[in-house]
Amino acid sequence: MADLSATIREALMRVGTSTLTGLLNRRGLKNMYLQDVWPIRPGMPRMVGIAFTMRFIPTREDKVGSRGNVQQRAMEECPPGHVLVVDARGDARAASAGDLYIGRLAARGCAGIVTDGGLRDSEGVLKTGLPAYHRRPSSPPSPIVHQPYDLGLPIACGGVAVYPGDIVVGDCDGVVVIPPDIVDEIAAEAVASTLYDEFAEGEVAKGRSLVGLFPVANDEAKRDFEIWKKSR
Amino acid sequence: MADLSATIREALMRVGTSTLTGLLNRRGLKNMYLQDVWPIRPGMPRMVGIAFTMRFIPTREDKVGSRGNVQQRAMEECPPGHVLVVDARGDARAASAGDLYIGRLAARGCAGIVTDGGLRDSEGVLKTGLPAYHRRPSSPPSPIVHQPYDLGLPIACGGVAVYPGDIVVGDCDGVVVIPPDIVDEIAAEAVASTLYDEFAEGEVAKGRSLVGLFPVANDEAKRDFEIWKKSR
Amino acid sequence: MADLSATIREALMRVGTSTLTGLLNRRGLKNMYLQDVWPIRPGMPRMVGIAFTMRFIPTREDKVGSRGNVQQRAMEECPPGHVLVVDARGDARAASAGDLYIGRLAARGCAGIVTDGGLRDSEGVLKTGLPAYHRRPSSPPSPIVHQPYDLGLPIACGGVAVYPGDIVVGDCDGVVVIPPDIVDEIAAEAVASTLYDEFAEGEVAKGRSLVGLFPVANDEAKRDFEIWKKSR
Amino acid sequence: MADLSATIREALMRVGTSTLTGLLNRRGLKNMYLQDVWPIRPGMPRMVGIAFTMRFIPTREDKVGSRGNVQQRAMEECPPGHVLVVDARGDARAASAGDLYIGRLAARGCAGIVTDGGLRDSEGVLKTGLPAYHRRPSSPPSPIVHQPYDLGLPIACGGVAVYPGDIVVGDCDGVVVIPPDIVDEIAAEAVASTLYDEFAEGEVAKGRSLVGLFPVANDEAKRDFEIWKKSR
Amino acid sequence: MADLSATIREALMRVGTSTLTGLLNRRGLKNMYLQDVWPIRPGMPRMVGIAFTMRFIPTREDKVGSRGNVQQRAMEECPPGHVLVVDARGDARAASAGDLYIGRLAARGCAGIVTDGGLRDSEGVLKTGLPAYHRRPSSPPSPIVHQPYDLGLPIACGGVAVYPGDIVVGDCDGVVVIPPDIVDEIAAEAVASTLYDEFAEGEVAKGRSLVGLFPVANDEAKRDFEIWKKSR
Amino acid sequence: MADLSATIREALMRVGTSTLTGLLNRRGLKNMYLQDVWPIRPGMPRMVGIAFTMRFIPTREDKVGSRGNVQQRAMEECPPGHVLVVDARGDARAASAGDLYIGRLAARGCAGIVTDGGLRDSEGVLKTGLPAYHRRPSSPPSPIVHQPYDLGLPIACGGVAVYPGDIVVGDCDGVVVIPPDIVDEIAAEAVASTLYDEFAEGEVAKGRSLVGLFPVANDEAKRDFEIWKKSR
Repeated sequence: MADLSATIREALMRVGTSTLTGLLNRRGLKNMYLQDVWPIRPGMPRMVGIAFTMRFIPTREDKVGSRGNVQQRAMEECPPGHVLVVDARGDARAASAGDLYIGRLAARGCAGIVTDGGLRDSEGVLKTGLPAYHRRPSSPPSPIVHQPYDLGLPIACGGVAVYPGDIVVGDCDGVVVIPPDIVDEIAAEAVASTLYDEFAEGEVAKGRSLVGLFPVANDEAKRDFEIWKKSR
Repeated sequence: MADLSATIREALMRVGTSTLTGLLNRRGLKNMYLQDVWPIRPGMPRMVGIAFTMRFIPTREDKVGSRGNVQQRAMEECPPGHVLVVDARGDARAASAGDLYIGRLAARGCAGIVTDGGLRDSEGVLKTGLPAYHRRPSSPPSPIVHQPYDLGLPIACGGVAVYPGDIVVGDCDGVVVIPPDIVDEIAAEAVASTLYDEFAEGEVAKGRSLVGLFPVANDEAKRDFEIWKKSR
Repeated sequence: MADLSATIREALMRVGTSTLTGLLNRRGLKNMYLQDVWPIRPGMPRMVGIAFTMRFIPTREDKVGSRGNVQQRAMEECPPGHVLVVDARGDARAASAGDLYIGRLAARGCAGIVTDGGLRDSEGVLKTGLPAYHRRPSSPPSPIVHQPYDLGLPIACGGVAVYPGDIVVGDCDGVVVIPPDIVDEIAAEAVASTLYDEFAEGEVAKGRSLVGLFPVANDEAKRDFEIWKKSR
Repeated sequence: MADLSATIREALMRVGTSTLTGLLNRRGLKNMYLQDVWPIRPGMPRMVGIAFTMRFIPTREDKVGSRGNVQQRAMEECPPGHVLVVDARGDARAASAGDLYIGRLAARGCAGIVTDGGLRDSEGVLKTGLPAYHRRPSSPPSPIVHQPYDLGLPIACGGVAVYPGDIVVGDCDGVVVIPPDIVDEIAAEAVASTLYDEFAEGEVAKGRSLVGLFPVANDEAKRDFEIWKKSR
Repeated sequence: MADLSATIREALMRVGTSTLTGLLNRRGLKNMYLQDVWPIRPGMPRMVGIAFTMRFIPTREDKVGSRGNVQQRAMEECPPGHVLVVDARGDARAASAGDLYIGRLAARGCAGIVTDGGLRDSEGVLKTGLPAYHRRPSSPPSPIVHQPYDLGLPIACGGVAVYPGDIVVGDCDGVVVIPPDIVDEIAAEAVASTLYDEFAEGEVAKGRSLVGLFPVANDEAKRDFEIWKKSR
Repeated sequence: MADLSATIREALMRVGTSTLTGLLNRRGLKNMYLQDVWPIRPGMPRMVGIAFTMRFIPTREDKVGSRGNVQQRAMEECPPGHVLVVDARGDARAASAGDLYIGRLAARGCAGIVTDGGLRDSEGVLKTGLPAYHRRPSSPPSPIVHQPYDLGLPIACGGVAVYPGDIVVGDCDGVVVIPPDIVDEIAAEAVASTLYDEFAEGEVAKGRSLVGLFPVANDEAKRDFEIWKKSR
């Protein structure tokens, strides 16, 4: 089972999805941000965890009940520290999950839930405290549209391939996926980059021009950054 | 004219649209949730009322003014306790109504307004205190896109057939429609179901497994629920 | 360079985009409201400024870097009191700008930023205090999708033609564009119209019928309005 | 009942929808072309007729059969020389009609069928010989999505308001609607305009510049046109 | 492995997808028609076969080549008499397959290919003679957007759940899926229903009313049908 | 002015857009195929030419006539051998051009017209013989939606950046753009690749497996290809 050290987890908690997509892009990973997937409320806490996947296919009247309760199993089997990522084919006409299911994930120490479909009972979901991301609220029960089919396969979510074991990070702007084999270096670079951004934000607020400061730092900016770091 | 007892109204005020769509689905009513129709602000009060309908058709330059002010009539004629439901063909390029019209509904004791188009002056609408649901804000005046044509016909709203006299319920996740002839039993079941959910949420928060608890309760869960109800 | 007096600016700060689209419509200007362009947060301050434009075209791998940093230049050259309006072809798969760029606009005294694509680092953008409008949040860096190509040309934004020098006004419902040659009269009429709306809202709240009051005022309403104005 | 003389009918059979939308636009009628509504096959004969309307609303499981067979009535009651125009809310997930229904329209001397949803049995429809326009083919039977509700009301079709009695014209590019009170003059102008286009096409094919020829004719072009007309 | 007798195959070759969706709907199967999936050319031969499935997920730059050539394997392993059904998530920005791959399916005696994405080299595909269905043509090579991931799983295609072993039928209006356990009775009913339609079409063409004939046959129509059958 | 030798032109006339997108992709050019842009009829001749661009912005009632007739100028100034590529923002609600304009392009020796909006008078356009590509037919005159603004700028068309001087190639599957500095080598490779495809198609039709043949050729396949070439 994939793992994520407390250090990396904390580091990723302090960096934004914008910083991460920028660093992933530099490595040629251009499609790691889930399109049209949002926090259920703007003020929700950030999310860091390891991907555990569930795949929905469309409901078919002759197959109802043929798979047991895969959805319930997902809530019972998603390991602590993991994020349940759901492939709902971008279809939010019926819910991907609701507050009781998500409450169970929370109680079991999971790190969040992400679907490119909808979530129901958003008020109840909010009360569970678990970071939850979806396309939009959706009250109808999932079997109207979805049949949960399997767990643990690579899936599509928000137009992005999500593999079990991927690192999943969410903030108020959405959700990004990081391959586990580069997460350590990405986290380290992200912390450094976030620090530079903090410095640059201060400079910009004081009226400094972007030229030589951002997006590319010249020697002077690098020197000032070193001084700023020491003086913090 | 359709009616809704205070008891049923209060009961529906305390249950969520997710609970209602679940119960409607069990009766084979699969398409009662208005798709892509949202409260104008997340914190808005819940809504319960009886449907009174207005139908827009597209504006045509040679027909302007040919119908008198159907829109104004809607605001003056929608009965107290009713929700004005507007068929805007899902088109939010121009508004379905604004704060003065909606203020009049509020002053006349109506229960809310729902459109699958847009509302304008959302800040003013919020001040009226009337629950208001739409697809998205839209500032342009309605005649740019819409001709209000008739009142009191069955319409489409958010992909759902809404008949005058239907019961309309809204919460932070959206709007659901209930046929009036089953509203009493749906309300009773919804209250019971909401109580069970409250029990189950507590159990889940304490770490209980979903197996045998939700979505299907086994004998043990039923027994524990009875005990919990008595101890409240 | 276009100019906007402090008086007009303050007047426009106090009127809503609904009022403005109504007045523009009466002059035959039917398409001045940017469709699907929203404040990054509901509570954001209103925006009034003069349009300064940037045009994106799609990225092409063989053209990367061929234009210098047009995006940085936009942030350095957008004049104080101006709104940077970005033609992102409605494509929010990658960001149009982020918090450092927008912080520079704020520091330089610009009036806002508007894109029909996405903005990244929305929390940081919020901290800059600059009114910012977009289609939806978007974390990926802009070069994945966009090549900034030129500044100062008429563009499309949210389905509306925006010419440099146009007056741009934003509130919680979205963004509207006003031709500079009629902004003085539009502002004056908007203030008057807003005052009448305030009067009418009070009347409606007291239970007065819309007939003769709104949308068309009869003699009685006009008289009452005059009395109300004196008594304020 | 609206009427259309054989002369006007024949005139409209010889002019294209492009010519008609141009002439309607000059009278301020800007939205008379049905968007996304196409002939079922490119080679289909042109269509001219008077609008007879049917309105679908979404299906609801508790209302099935509550309206008798409105759809069958439409096929039996649409008068000869008329076009059955269907408001399917742009929804082609299930059919608006099929070959037997359309065969009956053909047998009864109707002039065509138009829907902004889908038609089924397109091969069979083609065999009936009746001009038929839709968004796309759709095999599922209509009750899966649609409840036919009423006949003879103004409706929306392809984003255009269609009133019973309107003149409906279709060619290989789509369908246009003409108000009956101006159809005589529109038809006359369209014939004249089509003749000029024929002349101009010949000139353009011979290498003549568009300047002074099209879209605005100068005196020379007008003179040449007169000569050309005589020499035909 | 699922099987399909020559008799059933031939029966299904002679009935339309409209007839089949009607019969499936009567058994409560409401979502068996693939939405927005079309023959590559209108005149293409009909298709009957057994579903063999391939699932694409989105491409990811760090996973290229990690699955061997699943796509090539699909073409080599799809059994004779089977239809390769591809889950492309409705994404036609890059191709699902091209003429060489499809030529191999044809050479191996497969019955067709269906994707809810795009096909490339449509002229070459046409030359292979294999029935081919897609959303629209798409020239770019599949790896730009798609990673072929697995064969033989239930998938989504055109919004429909397709299980390996399902019977897949295509005509000029699109593609429908039939559960294998009811295909015999569906085929028999479809042939009978098609015969009645042929009779009814003739009657309608002769001017007979739909009342009592279609969609519901009365005793007279049943009697006439029996006579007609004998006289054929 | 960009140029294109007769040899390259003829080579490109004989290769498909699928072959070209494949070769461009190998050079890292992943977005050169115009999405949702189609030939006006399936049987239209192929197109090869050099890009000459026109940019539309949305119409605004206060700017009508402010640019002279840019559209007419486009038809008079697009050089022989060039393709007029139009940025219509993917908006086909009104036409980008019609048969007289396109007839003039044909008479002047231009190579084609491409828009991501619509074309009107498609029958007339077909008669001009000029290859013409669009999103869908659209009868309404362009000023209802579009203001032609400038010629000769890089534009977006079908989601692709098109620079003046780019090589534009169209077949029955759509349109692809080639940077002029690599067109010679792309053309040469495309001819070679097309020849191999022809060989491979023959082999596949004879029953040869794809393994070692396509998409990757092994030594045996290379040897057989050499023999086949000599025997042609």
